Amino acid sequence: MKALVYHGPGRKALEARPKPEIQAGGDAIVRMTKTTICGTDLHILKGDVATCAPGRILGHEGVGVIEAVGAGVTAFKPGDSVLISCITACGKCYFCRRVMYSHCTTGGWILGNAIDGTQAEFVRIPHAETTLNPNPAAAEEEALVMLSDILPTGFECGVLNGKVEPGSSVAIVGAGPIGLAALLTAQFYSPAQIIMIDLDDNRLGVARQFGATHTINSADGKAAEAVMALTGGRGVDTAIEAVGVPATFLICQDVIGPGGVIANVGVHGSKVDLHLERLWSRNISITTRLVDTVTTPMLLKTVQAGKIDPTRLITHHFTLDGILDAYETFGHAADTQALKVIITV
Amino acid sequence: MKALVYHGPGRKALEARPKPEIQAGGDAIVRMTKTTICGTDLHILKGDVATCAPGRILGHEGVGVIEAVGAGVTAFKPGDSVLISCITACGKCYFCRRVMYSHCTTGGWILGNAIDGTQAEFVRIPHAETTLNPNPAAAEEEALVMLSDILPTGFECGVLNGKVEPGSSVAIVGAGPIGLAALLTAQFYSPAQIIMIDLDDNRLGVARQFGATHTINSADGKAAEAVMALTGGRGVDTAIEAVGVPATFLICQDVIGPGGVIANVGVHGSKVDLHLERLWSRNISITTRLVDTVTTPMLLKTVQAGKIDPTRLITHHFTLDGILDAYETFGHAADTQALKVIITV
Amino acid sequence: MKALVYHGPGRKALEARPKPEIQAGGDAIVRMTKTTICGTDLHILKGDVATCAPGRILGHEGVGVIEAVGAGVTAFKPGDSVLISCITACGKCYFCRRVMYSHCTTGGWILGNAIDGTQAEFVRIPHAETTLNPNPAAAEEEALVMLSDILPTGFECGVLNGKVEPGSSVAIVGAGPIGLAALLTAQFYSPAQIIMIDLDDNRLGVARQFGATHTINSADGKAAEAVMALTGGRGVDTAIEAVGVPATFLICQDVIGPGGVIANVGVHGSKVDLHLERLWSRNISITTRLVDTVTTPMLLKTVQAGKIDPTRLITHHFTLDGILDAYETFGHAADTQALKVIITV
Amino acid sequence: MKALVYHGPGRKALEARPKPEIQAGGDAIVRMTKTTICGTDLHILKGDVATCAPGRILGHEGVGVIEAVGAGVTAFKPGDSVLISCITACGKCYFCRRVMYSHCTTGGWILGNAIDGTQAEFVRIPHAETTLNPNPAAAEEEALVMLSDILPTGFECGVLNGKVEPGSSVAIVGAGPIGLAALLTAQFYSPAQIIMIDLDDNRLGVARQFGATHTINSADGKAAEAVMALTGGRGVDTAIEAVGVPATFLICQDVIGPGGVIANVGVHGSKVDLHLERLWSRNISITTRLVDTVTTPMLLKTVQAGKIDPTRLITHHFTLDGILDAYETFGHAADTQALKVIITV
Repeated sequence: MKALVYHGPGRKALEARPKPEIQAGGDAIVRMTKTTICGTDLHILKGDVATCAPGRILGHEGVGVIEAVGAGVTAFKPGDSVLISCITACGKCYFCRRVMYSHCTTGGWILGNAIDGTQAEFVRIPHAETTLNPNPAAAEEEALVMLSDILPTGFECGVLNGKVEPGSSVAIVGAGPIGLAALLTAQFYSPAQIIMIDLDDNRLGVARQFGATHTINSADGKAAEAVMALTGGRGVDTAIEAVGVPATFLICQDVIGPGGVIANVGVHGSKVDLHLERLWSRNISITTRLVDTVTTPMLLKTVQAGKIDPTRLITHHFTLDGILDAYETFGHAADTQALKVIITV
Repeated sequence: MKALVYHGPGRKALEARPKPEIQAGGDAIVRMTKTTICGTDLHILKGDVATCAPGRILGHEGVGVIEAVGAGVTAFKPGDSVLISCITACGKCYFCRRVMYSHCTTGGWILGNAIDGTQAEFVRIPHAETTLNPNPAAAEEEALVMLSDILPTGFECGVLNGKVEPGSSVAIVGAGPIGLAALLTAQFYSPAQIIMIDLDDNRLGVARQFGATHTINSADGKAAEAVMALTGGRGVDTAIEAVGVPATFLICQDVIGPGGVIANVGVHGSKVDLHLERLWSRNISITTRLVDTVTTPMLLKTVQAGKIDPTRLITHHFTLDGILDAYETFGHAADTQALKVIITV
Repeated sequence: MKALVYHGPGRKALEARPKPEIQAGGDAIVRMTKTTICGTDLHILKGDVATCAPGRILGHEGVGVIEAVGAGVTAFKPGDSVLISCITACGKCYFCRRVMYSHCTTGGWILGNAIDGTQAEFVRIPHAETTLNPNPAAAEEEALVMLSDILPTGFECGVLNGKVEPGSSVAIVGAGPIGLAALLTAQFYSPAQIIMIDLDDNRLGVARQFGATHTINSADGKAAEAVMALTGGRGVDTAIEAVGVPATFLICQDVIGPGGVIANVGVHGSKVDLHLERLWSRNISITTRLVDTVTTPMLLKTVQAGKIDPTRLITHHFTLDGILDAYETFGHAADTQALKVIITV
Repeated sequence: MKALVYHGPGRKALEARPKPEIQAGGDAIVRMTKTTICGTDLHILKGDVATCAPGRILGHEGVGVIEAVGAGVTAFKPGDSVLISCITACGKCYFCRRVMYSHCTTGGWILGNAIDGTQAEFVRIPHAETTLNPNPAAAEEEALVMLSDILPTGFECGVLNGKVEPGSSVAIVGAGPIGLAALLTAQFYSPAQIIMIDLDDNRLGVARQFGATHTINSADGKAAEAVMALTGGRGVDTAIEAVGVPATFLICQDVIGPGGVIANVGVHGSKVDLHLERLWSRNISITTRLVDTVTTPMLLKTVQAGKIDPTRLITHHFTLDGILDAYETFGHAADTQALKVIITV
């Protein structure tokens, strides 16, 4: 089969690989129909992800059709349409019983990382019954690809952790795909203000179309002042960090109001300054989270009910044969204005 | 009347001051019977608290008897025994309605700071009805002095924010009075492990008497390793920071398990390093809080029911005339082994 | 001044009454500009509310302008526009400190019940600072009248107690004003299904316009079957009872799914059957609540942000001189299709 | 093997039955070492449980040793000591993903009910990995038998649902084994008052030894009055119904304070009166629950940490050969003063 393979920092190739086979009773083999590329795939290609060894098929998102199942799988059968969660969960370990699938002792984020992934014609999914979700007939495949990772990430790590509520004020720092996913799902809770902060005016324009009530280009270093002005000097109830660098985390500290939550979504590569000399008495919370994909069934229902249209995140389409172009387009988002790309297998 | 007055960094005196008078309809004048000294008073004396001007009577804790009330006060009358909360709350502003008294727009921590305090024969208490608590006949006065600040601080900022629960594991970094208050109140929730960390073996000994299941002297720099060993490598569910310096906040980051909470109680004077490069994916929360004293009625009930004995925190007794000695004793706790001192007025 | 006065069961009159005066330091006198009639006023007129004695001025909703304030009131001054909450709260008693204003020991629902109410040119409001809300310049007065009682009631007792969440299924039994208020505010949380049940096709038509995804006329006794069909046999996550009779509470028990919540909003005059022989093992909750009006500031923000348009509930307009006609119209809602009426003073 | 078999209402026998065998990949065969009898077993013998057909081996509690596992089981191996939860959970269905194991679509309470149970030398456990718990070396077997059903039932359905908290007041109606289990586990949260109500003075005496602060014999019909007197007229914060008849549920309604929770634990055979005409405005919750056994790992930790001694519930010991005597003793608890009996296999 064809697959996109990582060959060490800066190197990848679309090449022929053996079709995966059932290895354990809980496995399923899924024939991929649609997949996509994640910012994390770019991190791997930079050599930032030590757990991903050369030779690995990349990708941890997508939808497909069950090709085969292991002896222990009863919830799915060949021919079933399925949505693949980026997080593999056994459903039975200490962490899975606490509904913290991201820390599953034999799972977590392993797909396209510690085991071969979804940017291929077929993929093997361990713990299939707790990792796959049935794809109800009515749902559009491309919308569902957004439920593998980006929507639950924005929703769980940003919106739920951030305790967004009706009438509240929200600042989202970073208007890339993940910040926009937080923006879309924050609207489930009817906040009064959603202030989007980024350096890219194009993305801020998209944010306004997606429902941001205010946008701020932080290039002038005055984003925090602008947020304070918009909130009557009180600061926001929720600040969502969707970039992953010290400067954006600092903005969150500067704009959070007393009693508020800073919900970190960004993947950080270095430590940050935490200004406890100011924040110790402010009754705030800071949360971190690797997505657990535990809200996927809930998100599926919101998609089916038309409460959210995830396809708004999709800007480009490719086939698997064109996946190198897809990486090129996605990797130069500032120029191509790419958000999420769909790769039809 | 006699009062302990702050005269700028390093300077204080017991001197004669006019007896306070009712200034607003919501005021009460309280004749003090017992008060105490807080670590924050020492901070003021170092010149660390900009809001406290020279000439201020110090103190924000204590019990006493109502001497007079303003025209708007109906909940108390002269002769009533009362417990003074260190936080003044109007009960009606944006923050008070959200039960966040620490941020009351006309209150918060002002006693012995922005207005004259309790280390005196009399004190004026603004917003008396929401700041004072009735002292039921059966309760011991000295126990109640511990409910002005130290017990609600340990409980609200450490135990409640830290989500201590039955069977969980808790690490408390800092075995001073505030860490010990967290230790005492953490036991309301029956955690399986309470690991106390400090540099002072005497305080660790006290911690064991107060219910710590394990104690660690962190002088060798290996406290985190020891905690990981005690928790089977998983880390603790709750880490309570009760010191307020970067090194102790770092220990909390090193010992917190996935899904855990770092509850900051310490007053920090400088920024700290937050290792988001490790923690971003660990599903943790970090909380800060200035005590709201909203649990004081709950704590009163636990004292009356004998569920906690706050007098265990009291090591020394003085009279108001001896308050300079009391400061000396409390300020040299390493030598005197002082925890909380009682000053009888 | 003119006022609508209750004179015992079935009897009321618009008549001259003395203008109210400040009685306590916390009082305010409000000159009414807009008020309305509540279903509870009809209950009083039937003689169902024992606490309301003949001679009482009715009404517990409305907006107006501060005419005078007591000595202890600092948050408002004459000339301020204010929204009157139907619940009077002292902000300092055991229940107010627990944010349960409905049970305030010197307040609760007393307006137009135990003390004179708002269907008059002026009204005295005790505990003004915690009972009145500032009416920001931009807000429309008629929209705000809906925030005195009906919207917080539907929201607090129905939607919040009912734990409506994104993607969930909700049944609301009763499409009168209060059920419709629950319908409007449930949409803050983006449920997938909102099934409205009533006997009146006109009201069900209104419900569809207001956002109900499905409507069921329960006249045939098969409402529960229809709900089960709409939810794949699982039942709803939230059932909101907005009528107050045994039959509608029974429907809620018949349609609630495992793990769901029955949120009672209706005012009940008699006991109901609770089928614990079926429900004991279903992991459900049943909640009751007298509105606390603690979400009024939150609702104000949603109105100002355009997240909800409360004026959709208003069907008729009258002046105070025409209040008897207003009662007639409101009291014959089946014929007049009245929801809420506005009375301009 | 020997097993206790149900033969229809009023009939049971200890007889020879074939040893169970692995039927599915997720099964385990457990060699029983200790089991017990539950009040529910008596219900079955009365013919009250329609799902339990004649020929069924009874019992849903106990500890044992793994004899064999199915092909899909990796978490356990032969020779492992295990604790059997009374609730069978697949870990992957809609309800299990919501941590509501009691409603598992292929599990729930099936053991000794829809499939053969634990009052036998061997038992087959479906979904073994999510139904069994490892029995750590240090734990005492008899203590753990109490964790199969009775302690998690009292804790989850009574204490957790009832939101017991430090300083609160709790009434438990029914001092049988399940009420006593609620009493023991309520103390995890340090309530100020635990008032135990029963008709049997012996059981009330046991309750006092187990930590009840007050006991009331309700034979005189004045239990509610006594509770109101003990709570200063306010009623309790939590009322736990641990009997399952209308009269005891009525007591709960009579004693619950505003804002409180009635947590139903009892198994009800008929409907009850719910006095909504009094309760609609009291801001209360009523909860029901079939135990989910999701707190078993937490309870195991509290047992290991010595925070609770479950063996206090054990009054009698038998061998499997004497199980008919055990039933006799357990079934005549009023005379024998039996609480829980241990049957050694």
